[in-house]
Order: sequence, then C-alpha cells, then structure tokens
Amino acid sequence: MRLQLMTWMEVEAHLNGNRGIIIPIGSTEQHGPNGLFGTDAICPEVIADRAAETLGCIVGPTISIGMAQHHLAFPGSIALRPSTLMAVVRDSVLSLARNGFERFYFLNGHGGNIATVSAAFSEIYAEKSLAVGPNQPHVRCKLANWFAFPAVKEISKELYGDRDGSHATASEISVTQYAYPEHIKKVDMDPAPPRPRPFYDAEDYRLIHPDGRIGADSFLATPEAGARLVEASAAGVVEDYRSFMAEA
Amino acid sequence: MRLQLMTWMEVEAHLNGNRGIIIPIGSTEQHGPNGLFGTDAICPEVIADRAAETLGCIVGPTISIGMAQHHLAFPGSIALRPSTLMAVVRDSVLSLARNGFERFYFLNGHGGNIATVSAAFSEIYAEKSLAVGPNQPHVRCKLANWFAFPAVKEISKELYGDRDGSHATASEISVTQYAYPEHIKKVDMDPAPPRPRPFYDAEDYRLIHPDGRIGADSFLATPEAGARLVEASAAGVVEDYRSFMAEA
Amino acid sequence: MRLQLMTWMEVEAHLNGNRGIIIPIGSTEQHGPNGLFGTDAICPEVIADRAAETLGCIVGPTISIGMAQHHLAFPGSIALRPSTLMAVVRDSVLSLARNGFERFYFLNGHGGNIATVSAAFSEIYAEKSLAVGPNQPHVRCKLANWFAFPAVKEISKELYGDRDGSHATASEISVTQYAYPEHIKKVDMDPAPPRPRPFYDAEDYRLIHPDGRIGADSFLATPEAGARLVEASAAGVVEDYRSFMAEA
Amino acid sequence: MRLQLMTWMEVEAHLNGNRGIIIPIGSTEQHGPNGLFGTDAICPEVIADRAAETLGCIVGPTISIGMAQHHLAFPGSIALRPSTLMAVVRDSVLSLARNGFERFYFLNGHGGNIATVSAAFSEIYAEKSLAVGPNQPHVRCKLANWFAFPAVKEISKELYGDRDGSHATASEISVTQYAYPEHIKKVDMDPAPPRPRPFYDAEDYRLIHPDGRIGADSFLATPEAGARLVEASAAGVVEDYRSFMAEA
Amino acid sequence: MRLQLMTWMEVEAHLNGNRGIIIPIGSTEQHGPNGLFGTDAICPEVIADRAAETLGCIVGPTISIGMAQHHLAFPGSIALRPSTLMAVVRDSVLSLARNGFERFYFLNGHGGNIATVSAAFSEIYAEKSLAVGPNQPHVRCKLANWFAFPAVKEISKELYGDRDGSHATASEISVTQYAYPEHIKKVDMDPAPPRPRPFYDAEDYRLIHPDGRIGADSFLATPEAGARLVEASAAGVVEDYRSFMAEA
Amino acid sequence: MRLQLMTWMEVEAHLNGNRGIIIPIGSTEQHGPNGLFGTDAICPEVIADRAAETLGCIVGPTISIGMAQHHLAFPGSIALRPSTLMAVVRDSVLSLARNGFERFYFLNGHGGNIATVSAAFSEIYAEKSLAVGPNQPHVRCKLANWFAFPAVKEISKELYGDRDGSHATASEISVTQYAYPEHIKKVDMDPAPPRPRPFYDAEDYRLIHPDGRIGADSFLATPEAGARLVEASAAGVVEDYRSFMAEA
Repeated sequence: MRLQLMTWMEVEAHLNGNRGIIIPIGSTEQHGPNGLFGTDAICPEVIADRAAETLGCIVGPTISIGMAQHHLAFPGSIALRPSTLMAVVRDSVLSLARNGFERFYFLNGHGGNIATVSAAFSEIYAEKSLAVGPNQPHVRCKLANWFAFPAVKEISKELYGDRDGSHATASEISVTQYAYPEHIKKVDMDPAPPRPRPFYDAEDYRLIHPDGRIGADSFLATPEAGARLVEASAAGVVEDYRSFMAEA
Repeated sequence: MRLQLMTWMEVEAHLNGNRGIIIPIGSTEQHGPNGLFGTDAICPEVIADRAAETLGCIVGPTISIGMAQHHLAFPGSIALRPSTLMAVVRDSVLSLARNGFERFYFLNGHGGNIATVSAAFSEIYAEKSLAVGPNQPHVRCKLANWFAFPAVKEISKELYGDRDGSHATASEISVTQYAYPEHIKKVDMDPAPPRPRPFYDAEDYRLIHPDGRIGADSFLATPEAGARLVEASAAGVVEDYRSFMAEA
Repeated sequence: MRLQLMTWMEVEAHLNGNRGIIIPIGSTEQHGPNGLFGTDAICPEVIADRAAETLGCIVGPTISIGMAQHHLAFPGSIALRPSTLMAVVRDSVLSLARNGFERFYFLNGHGGNIATVSAAFSEIYAEKSLAVGPNQPHVRCKLANWFAFPAVKEISKELYGDRDGSHATASEISVTQYAYPEHIKKVDMDPAPPRPRPFYDAEDYRLIHPDGRIGADSFLATPEAGARLVEASAAGVVEDYRSFMAEA
Repeated sequence: MRLQLMTWMEVEAHLNGNRGIIIPIGSTEQHGPNGLFGTDAICPEVIADRAAETLGCIVGPTISIGMAQHHLAFPGSIALRPSTLMAVVRDSVLSLARNGFERFYFLNGHGGNIATVSAAFSEIYAEKSLAVGPNQPHVRCKLANWFAFPAVKEISKELYGDRDGSHATASEISVTQYAYPEHIKKVDMDPAPPRPRPFYDAEDYRLIHPDGRIGADSFLATPEAGARLVEASAAGVVEDYRSFMAEA
Repeated sequence: MRLQLMTWMEVEAHLNGNRGIIIPIGSTEQHGPNGLFGTDAICPEVIADRAAETLGCIVGPTISIGMAQHHLAFPGSIALRPSTLMAVVRDSVLSLARNGFERFYFLNGHGGNIATVSAAFSEIYAEKSLAVGPNQPHVRCKLANWFAFPAVKEISKELYGDRDGSHATASEISVTQYAYPEHIKKVDMDPAPPRPRPFYDAEDYRLIHPDGRIGADSFLATPEAGARLVEASAAGVVEDYRSFMAEA
Repeated sequence: MRLQLMTWMEVEAHLNGNRGIIIPIGSTEQHGPNGLFGTDAICPEVIADRAAETLGCIVGPTISIGMAQHHLAFPGSIALRPSTLMAVVRDSVLSLARNGFERFYFLNGHGGNIATVSAAFSEIYAEKSLAVGPNQPHVRCKLANWFAFPAVKEISKELYGDRDGSHATASEISVTQYAYPEHIKKVDMDPAPPRPRPFYDAEDYRLIHPDGRIGADSFLATPEAGARLVEASAAGVVEDYRSFMAEA
C-alpha cells in the first residue's frame, strides 16, 4: 500500500503491530543517451510496490531527488547537497516516528546516496545518543540497494556481464523500460568504454564520461530483463525487510 | 513531458529557447476520513501534466513532502521543517539553473507551503542580492496554487458552496478521485462543522479538528467534479505560465 | 508600555494574567526620494505604542531589520536572509515564552517580511510538533500588518486612491512625517509610473524602479494624514489583539 | 544622522568619501530593581547619536537584542543564541558593504556580546579568507564598549568607586535616566553584595544574584551622572572612530 | 613530515610539484577493557608517519574526534554529529586548497567515519558543482582505511582469524601497543561472543555489547603483531597514495 | 593522564568524585620563519600534561585546528570558521557531559580562539537557558590561556621584553623547542618591526606581516626558556584548575 493512497485512519489501524515502513529513495539525474532522469527513483519505487504486495506493508512517498552533484554538468540533473538530503531524511523519519513508526527501510536506487543517507541515520541517532533524557522514540533505519541483492546481481551478470557497467546500467534501464514501456528511448550509441579513471565533481564527470554512461552498454536493456530484475529484487526486499522487522 | 521520463539529450535540445519548468509541490498529510495522504501532491502533479500537454514544457519531479507541521498528530503525516524545505527548493532551483533553466513555476497543492516556499525564493534571491559579483544565474521563481485560479474557485463554489471547507475539501478530494478512481474511499462521516477557531501546532489541530477535516463535507467529492477541476486549473496554469515566460 | 523602559519586576507583576506581547517588526530599506529608511519600523512602532496605551499591554523591542533583499541595490538598505530572520524570531519568542509569555502579536510594517515571519512561526511550531515530549511552552504567534486594517485602507483610498502605490506609499510616509515632523524631506519628484512588471532580486528592482518607489506619489504625504492613519490602525490593533487574547 | 531618518539619496551622497558607519548594539535583559530592560541598547544609541553630531557620520539601526542567555531566568529578558546574533551581524555588514560601506564601528553596551560579535567578525573575514577569488568587499569591523573609554571609567570610579558593580551598574542606569528622565524608577533596595562567585547559565545567575544586580548599588544612579558619562563616552567614540577611519 | 612540525616556508617550498597531503582521521571512543580511547586516531597517525618516511610527503594534523555516536553510553567517548564532522573536513580541505594543495588523502581508523567523511567530500564537490563560476580550486579527496589493505587483512586473519572481531579488534589494539608500549593494559576478560545483532544508537550498543567489544578477543593483542600491521599498512598507503597522486 | 591512552573502565572509575577534564585547544597556523605550524596546539598540550601529573586529572584530546582565518594566506595554515569550531566544542562537551563530566577546562594556545570558544560556551548554555525542562546536564566551561598566567608573563618579560612580540613569540617557540628539540629550525631573519597597524583578513595580514611574525624576534627562542615557561604555566594551571573545581 502506498501511503500516498491511504487515509490516516487506515494508517492508524495498520500501525497496530506493524511498526515498519519502506521508503523508496532515488535521484533525478542523467542516465546516458537512452536512460530516464527518473531511473534511480523509478526502480526502487516499482520494486517496493511489488514487495509490499507480499509484505502487506506501507510504502512511503518516494524521495525522488538525491545526492547527485557529480551529474550536474548535464542539463536536467538535480542534486541536493548532502546536508540538505540529511535534513529531509531526518524530518521524514521523526515525523513518522512521532506517531509510532519505528523501523524505516529505505530502498535505494542510487549509489551516490549511500554515504549521505547513512550519515543522515547517524545524525538522527546522534541527537538521541547525545541527550540523556527520555521522550525520544527508538528509531531504527536501514538502507538497502535494490541492485545489490545476490539474485539481482546474478541476473545482471547472466544477461550483461561486464557490459552492464556502473552508471546507466543495462539493468536499471531495463527496469524502467518494464515500468514505462511507452517511454523506451531508441537512441544510437557505441559500446561504452570501461570506466577509465576516477571522477570527483561534475566537470570531472562530464569530461571523462561525455555521454553520461560509465562503462555501460545501456542499449542492451529490455523490458523483459526489467521484469525479471524487479521480481528478483522484490523477493530480496521481502526477505530482508522481514528479517529487519524480526530483530529483537 | 515529465523530466523523470526524459533523457538528458532531450532536455538539452529542449532548453534551446525554453528556459522554464513547472515543478509540482505538495505535501504528505492526513486529509480526513476519505482523503488520501498524497492529495496535495497528486493534484498539482495531475494538473501540471495536463497543462504541459498544451504548453509542451517540462514538468520536474514532484516535491511530495511539504511543510505540514500542524498535521503531525495524525499518524502517517510527514513534515519538513521550513528550513529543510527551503534548502530543498534552493538546491533544486540552483541545480537546474546551473545548466540554463531560468524560470521556475512551482504549482502548489498545499496552503501550508506558501509562506515557506516564498521565503525559499527570497533566500535564493538574497544570496544573489548580497553578493556583488557576476557568475550568478538570473533566476525567477513563481508560486501558483492550483485551487486559486478564478475558474477553479467558481466550480468549487458552484458544486459545494460553503461546504467545500478549507482542508480535505470536496474539491481536492474530487481531483484525487479522478486521478485514482480505484482508490476512492467509502467512509461514513457527518457534515463537518465550520472552522471553529484558529490552530497553531499539531496538538491544537487534532484537538479542534478530531477527524482531520476543516469545515469540509469531503463525502461530496466525485471523480466527475475532479475532471472538471483539473481541466479548469490546467487552463489557468497554461495562461499563467505563458505570461510568466513572456515577462521581459 | 515599552518593554525597553520597564524593569523585570514590573514585567513579572504584569505577567499575572497577561500572557501577550506586541512586537513591532519592520525593515531598514530605501523608501524612495522622500521616504525614510526606517519607515517600515517606525510605523508599527508608533502604532503599537498608541494601541498599548489603550490595551495596557507590553510592547517588545522593535525588530528593525527585515527581509529586504530586493532593496539591496540602493545604498543604506539592510537585509537579513530569511533563514537569519527566522532565527531571530524563534529565539525572541522562545526567550519570552520561557518565563510565561504565550501569545505573540507581531505588528508588521513590511510586506517583504510576511512570508518569512510566517515561516518562522511554523519553524517554532514544527520543533514542538515533531517532538512528543512535554516541556514545550504552548506558544501562539500572529502577524498583522498595520496597513491592512479596513479602516486604514479606507483612509488611504480616500486620500490617495491609486496614487498611494505599493512601495514608499504616501500613506506610510505620512505616518513617519507624523512621527518625525522634524525629518520631513522636501524633494522634487515626478508622479510615479504604475508598477510596470514583476521584480525578483535587487538588480531587477532598481532597474525597474530607479528611484525606489513603486507606483507611489510619495510627495502627497502629510503629517496630518499620518495622524489619521495612526489612529485608525491603532484602533484596528486594539480590536484584533483583544480577539487574539480571547481565543480559547 | 540616524540611517533610519535618512533617504537613500542622502546616503548615496554621503558615501562619497565616507565609508564608515556606527552601529549601536545592546541587549534586552533585566537590569535589577530599577534598571530598564533596554539599558544596554539605550546607552550606546544615545552616545552614538551624540558622537555623530561631531563626526557627521551615519548611525545605523540599533541591534537591540543581544546574547543574554544568562539573564533568561528573569521574565522579559530576550536572548539570541550566539549563532543567531552572528548571522544578524554578518547579514547587516554584507548588506551595507554591497553598496560601498567599508568600515563598521559597533558601539556596544553589553559585555555578554563581546565574544559573540568578535566571532561574527571572524566569520565574515573567514568567508573571504577561505575563498581565493575577487568580488569580496574589503570589510573592516571594530567593536568598542561605551563604558570602557578611560574618561568614562574615571567618572564611574570618582562617582561610585566599587559600588558601581558589574551589572546594572549605577553608571549605566545613570545614562538611561539621563536619556529617559520620565522613566526613572524609584525602588527600594539594599546595597548589593559584591559578586560572590562565577555563574554560567540562567539558573545559576538567578540563584546567585536573585534581584538581578551584580555588586551594583544601582540606586546611586542620577541623570546628572548620566549626562557626564554620555559626554565623556561620546568624546571617546569621536577619537576612536576617527582613528579607525584613518587606518591605512 | 608532520605539518605540525614544519614551518610555512618549508611547506611553501614543498608545494612545488607536490600537491598532496595525508590527513589521519580517527575517533575518541571506548575500545573495550584493554583498548585505548585513542585507538582509532593512533593507528592511522602512526601508519601515516611511517608511509610519509617513504613518500616524503606531508602529514596533516590528526582529526582525533570522529562520528562515534554509538559509543556514547561509555564514559569518555566523544562524538561529533555528522554535520559537525562534515564542516571540519570541509574547512580543513578548503583552507589547504586555498594555497595550492589539491589532493587530500584521508587515512582513516574508524569504520563509523566512512559514511560521514564520504558525505563531507560530496558536500565540498557539491558547492563547486552547483556554482558555475571560476575561482574554485579543483580538489580531490580520497578516504582509505588503514585496516583494509589486503596485506593487513591477511596478517589479521593469520594471527587472529575470526577472533579478531569487529570493534576493539586484536589487530588495532596491537598497533596501539606497538605505538605506546608503556600503556599496554593488563585486564582480565572472557572471549567475546560473536556479534549477536545489529545496533543503532548508544543505548542499543551498550545493552548488546556491555564491555564495549564486538566479537573481539582483544587480549590477544601484542606489540609484535602491531609492528607487522603498521609495516604492512604503511606499504599499502605508499602504493595507494602514489596511485592517487598519479591520477590524470 | 591522557584520555587517548586510557580505557573506558579507567575513566568510569576516575569519574567517581572527579567531574573535571582539561582540554588543550590550539591551532594549525604559520608561526614565522622558525616557528612550527603546531605551536599553538603543542604548547597547551605539553603544559596540560605537566599540570595533570600534579592534578591527577584527565587531559582530553587536543583540538589542534582553531580559528585562524587571518593566517590563511600562508600555505599550510588551516582554519575552522567560528561556526564550525563552535559545533566542535559543543559536541565534545555534550558528549562528555552525557556520562558525568561537568567542568571543562580548556587550556588555550591561540589568541584567535578566545572569542569563538567563549561564544561556543554561550551557545551551550543558551540551549539550556532557552529550554525550561529538566534533563540537561549542568555544565561549566572555562577558557584559560597558557601564556597569560602572571608567572609566565614575568618570565617572558624578563627574557625578551618587548622583543617577545605578539605572534610567533620567542616564548611560544621556546616551548615548542623544549617539547621537540629535534625540530628546532635554524633560519636567518632580521629583528621584527613592531606591529605597525591592525589587520582583518588573511590578505591584510600577509601584506602587513610578510614573514608571518608580529613584532617578534623569534630567533631568541631557546629550549631552556621553554622549560621554564612550561613549568611556570603548569603551576598556574594547577592552581587555576583547582580553584575551578572548588567552585560551589
């Protein structure tokens, strides 16, 4: 169930014994010649919905803008500074915690978010750990990457091997093609060279990866592959979320 | 066109001569017994999409969490502090401005956002006005409320009169019923009393408005009314956006 | 009674049963060829003093610098960024609330402050609404504009009609001439053109409104008009403040 | 000339060759049984006005709320956190610097402000020192305490000796009695014990100094003493300001 | 060479052609019954010194307090909130970058710092990526963990296998025993149970790991093991740093 | 005892009846042709260690980077903005206070830190003074400068008179020569001119003081003088710390 499509009375009823929530988090950033800006948000959103069907849990609103400073040399990319994204995560968690949510499972679609969201969790805990008093909810946050479950990695490897790349991957574009088949982009592009060297800021990135891809033959994406990946990742989420909820 | 469903090359091409973007902004907050949490985000999103069909312009990712502190006593509500929301607006605008976007039309669905988003615009301008140097993009931001166009107000008045209320209005719930017909909630409720007295924080609000509505007979909502409202508001956006783009 | 001219023992005595305070808030910004920088602070200060004579209430120290980024291209103008002004309002309110003040009536003289001060109120409430614990004072804040009471608008309209304008208005300059008759400035100026188009940052503003006025024939100001306006606005404050104090 | 009572054209004319400004800064805090809340703001304001008559310079709006956390256990006291006051000083200085002011002479009336205002100056310089680029105005800030000029200290010593104390001093109350003779408070009080031991936060302070004075026989204040002190301090400001302006 | 023991003229001379610096970063947190609070700072400091002998490079001052919120239930532990640590990293990097340092190699001793320091790097890059202008130094930051070089892991495994644990490891305590042989603590303790379950905030941690260790038989530490680990890790740093400096 | 070299069980035992801690705080900044970057951190660290031998108290980790914006034109200098340093002090104090430390004695080696660290203390107290609730530890912070004890000043005067100067003083360089005899720098330099005029930001400073010294004949430093100064300052700390601990 998407929180956005529920009423507060439904949420209140659900909270009896269900203290968890899944929050998809992504980014709005270029994904090469045939990848959508919303790729990193669409993937965890679709997978969270699928997992929630099995879990019967609530899926919060997708945080669709993330920490994407390195993509800012491509028009259309949007980045929150880490300090801004941390405030968003903090306020969202504390808002829900105020009324009884206790375990927050962030399903992430963007590697660039990992450090910042983890730091945001620590900022939340630090507020509690520095204070001695009562009155603070006991919050637990977990970040999982939809693309990192073993079964997902296996499919990516089976289908694309090294040609999957590390940004604008054939895998993630496949998921968006499955989710939005009417928005499959037909674009000519050459095979991507392997990732040549590290980058740091936005100008670095565009200089090194002029069409936006990092070592990815994004044109190999298919909606069929997307369907398999969604299924595999959702299964991973189901198991991982249950284990998170079962923690003592 | 939703930015989320475009590629960066499409955006780059579009930017030739088109420096504007519509950004829907809403909230995730209780909307009474039959209103969806996502109401304030869904309405401007649907209307922006409709307007963009006519305008041929880009619609950015919806900012779906807003300044909703007064709803926090209802489980499921999420609020960003004003300072957090201001940082989100600032980073989003400056990200897009970096590559050539110049005019930002925020289509808003939540009265509680108005002051904060306006303050965010001033924060952006103040950074520029306090500095003397060059290098700062010339950014213009505008906030419009989907429910405030005269033609929209007329329909609301015609259909509901005083019974539309001021939160969880029959009008806004109608729009969500039109957008998500499979999520129309059938809930019994009494006619809402008129807004009795001012509220300030979340505990105030729930005490005064125990089921979340403010003076709204939300059960009068229909998807048909929603269709009319979307059409009227989108027409208002088209005209207003064009006038914003035409400013010298 | 101005707080600045009281002792703490007088305040302590006053607090028995009187939990309210009026805080004038203005700006230090250019007001055209014959308007004073302090106009927006002087007006609410004078009117608050007059109203307090009737109300017997306390008037806090005037916040004389506001959110005036758009005036920064005129030398002498001072602006607090919205985030700074929000911190000032927050600390001031919480300082007074700590010892028993509960209702804060901000009498405002500057349109540019409205969004930011409203956002500041939300920031204060949000701190409380996000926390669940006790220990937080129950604070209520209200913003009223001295120039917006119906009786004030009527006088402005009667005296100046459309020639009152929207910045450096004949009305506000009249109030300062009444308050500081020895500082009436005699300056030649032409009738102001009506407000031609929207402005955003400081450079915009000065380009469009080169002498600082917006559609205002400021030379029409007289101290006699000022006296009438002060009287009318103070009467509006008295009624509005009493109603604020009487809220359940 | 008070900036508040000038027009922007007068300021623009004055700026030719005069790049300095005096900014009075004080506090709104208890000053014992017969001292005014505004004491620390009134003193530097009155003295700045007097000095400006001789200097022909501009006096900016008084910053009347300061860093007074230790007085917060007395009702009516208001404190800005150091971080808030630093933002106020920074924005005020940069606003004026944008249009040509270069030297900022803060005339201070409150010992509790000294560290914070000095830190604010460093924050301003640090922004510039950390950046390498051009475009930053060359700003110089100086803090002077009205009560610390040798001639002032001599008068205080001559009139009151050790009985002047260190808070709610007979000297500062004398200045306010000179400035506001109609607000001289007649209150019985015993001689104050000498300052017994250090204090840290607000509860400390009130416990140790239950009527708010620190070692001060405030009842010795007279308007005549105030007149002498104002004259002496203004002379100190004149000399010190001239020397500040004359720096290479 | 430790920066702390150099003069500015030596640094200026060194900067010709050497744009890199190693900055050790650790934490001040409990390390179980026989581990030192400074463990996480001492290890990278000692190893950086050793590597710098070979590299001939500069070692900056150790950042000895880190993000250790989860250790705060043990007296003596100190934590910076992530937002604070990010500001420290940012100001340090920009200070050095202002005069020509370009590549910053942070040698880290504390797993809890990784996310926050990575987010700090992104905050630095984001400031540059969001701006379009020139004048920003081209900074590259890299984080390396002293304990993660393959040769180090091999020694830990060879010596301790699974008994090394994940906090207060025999390996890290060995390094401190090598560095400070006069501070080897003789304390009785049982073998540590394996890490039983996840922890989040400080109270969690102490409840689950009452003596502070996580699965570590810290009593196995020896200074001889420390000597080997320092040697191996320093060799890893030498190679990794050279490769970082050699990046195009 | 240095906290860095203790275990948490030792700290816990020590806390019974000993609620104080000494925290050395310095800077990493140029100190002229023969002075070390670490001078301001090394001095209080060495002196705190010596004093702690007598006092039997704990010495926390040295804060080795301070507020040194004015030195940033010399390569190798590092500065925290005042706001950053304030956050570091605040988090450090609250971390230790959480588990029972109550009195924090900062032994300072850098004049440029005084205002900022004092403001940091006020920020800590203000958080408590603004809140009314319980749960806040009763913290007392004190800043002492190692070079300001009368016995220290006498030695400096006896040895160097006016030639000690005010930055890169012969005295402070003597202390570092005593602490690090293997790092005594032999550099030719002329006698320093007396401090010619005030400076504000980094460019000012380097222009006025091109080799970094302010009126100091730093070449007069000797390790023997350092030994005397350390002894005298440590004795001052012992007495001052005891008096701080003895406060009611």
